[in-house]
Amino acid sequence: MTLSMYQATVPGVIRMMNSLSAILDKAQAYCGAKKIEDKTLLEVRLFPDMFPLARQIQIVSDTAKGMVARLSGQEPPGMPDTEATIAELKARLAKTVEFVKSVHPSKFDGAESRTVTINIGGGRKADFAGQDYLFNNALPNFYFHAATAYDLLRHAGLEIGKRDYLGN
Amino acid sequence: MTLSMYQATVPGVIRMMNSLSAILDKAQAYCGAKKIEDKTLLEVRLFPDMFPLARQIQIVSDTAKGMVARLSGQEPPGMPDTEATIAELKARLAKTVEFVKSVHPSKFDGAESRTVTINIGGGRKADFAGQDYLFNNALPNFYFHAATAYDLLRHAGLEIGKRDYLGN
Repeated sequence: MTLSMYQATVPGVIRMMNSLSAILDKAQAYCGAKKIEDKTLLEVRLFPDMFPLARQIQIVSDTAKGMVARLSGQEPPGMPDTEATIAELKARLAKTVEFVKSVHPSKFDGAESRTVTINIGGGRKADFAGQDYLFNNALPNFYFHAATAYDLLRHAGLEIGKRDYLGN
Repeated sequence: MTLSMYQATVPGVIRMMNSLSAILDKAQAYCGAKKIEDKTLLEVRLFPDMFPLARQIQIVSDTAKGMVARLSGQEPPGMPDTEATIAELKARLAKTVEFVKSVHPSKFDGAESRTVTINIGGGRKADFAGQDYLFNNALPNFYFHAATAYDLLRHAGLEIGKRDYLGN
């Protein structure tokens, strides 16, 4: 088993998006049982100036397709942030998984030293070597939004556990 | 720049623990300004059956030293979970960073294919190849607890942003 940028990136993000999709199935059932509208659940926040649940899932998608595109030298597919239901967010995740799966592993060859330029906030940009970008920025950020989506649902009373997050 | 299990593991976890330590400095100042006791802040939870803030930080430490130890073929240093103040949690993170830094990069040679056995809950164990363990379990879990610590503090009103989490 050889260490590769492809192996460091693709299986993990696919796995997590599939976990979130399964968690959204449980959220859908919860909404049905509790007579909660999708819209209400998708608007929950941990603090008024934090992003709500729907946006957290959209950013999971953005960070996944963004890192895969940057490391493999491609343009990420545009996905307008128009999802208004749990089913539409699941479709967004599925479409993102489809893109990630479509990239041939060989496109990641040499990605560890490819220069990646990203916005770091405050209008500033920074250059990273591919592997520093992946391990110190892209993966921490991707998992931040995945964990926050989980946290929002736990906070809203959904009965899920760490195994739902990590997958089997 | 060569891709290595050391580079995939060590700089990222050190960076995140240092970010959390700086976030805890802000939390300490917040407690002072708001006349909140450390104990009160460290007990905040997102839901009654979720771990409180102090435990989230302890698990950040546990997952960091656990993954570094497993991948480098060592025993992780024991750290009893006795921290009761923000200062003690900062010391726990510092001690964990010290351990992580103490492991020579060469100890990670071949770690991508080293067999790692972990508890996956429900009394079950599973074997992973080192790189699958790192990318599909250890890093997602480590960042889960780091993000949840951040989320708990945001939920408690602390004014921090993504740059505090990702570091500079």
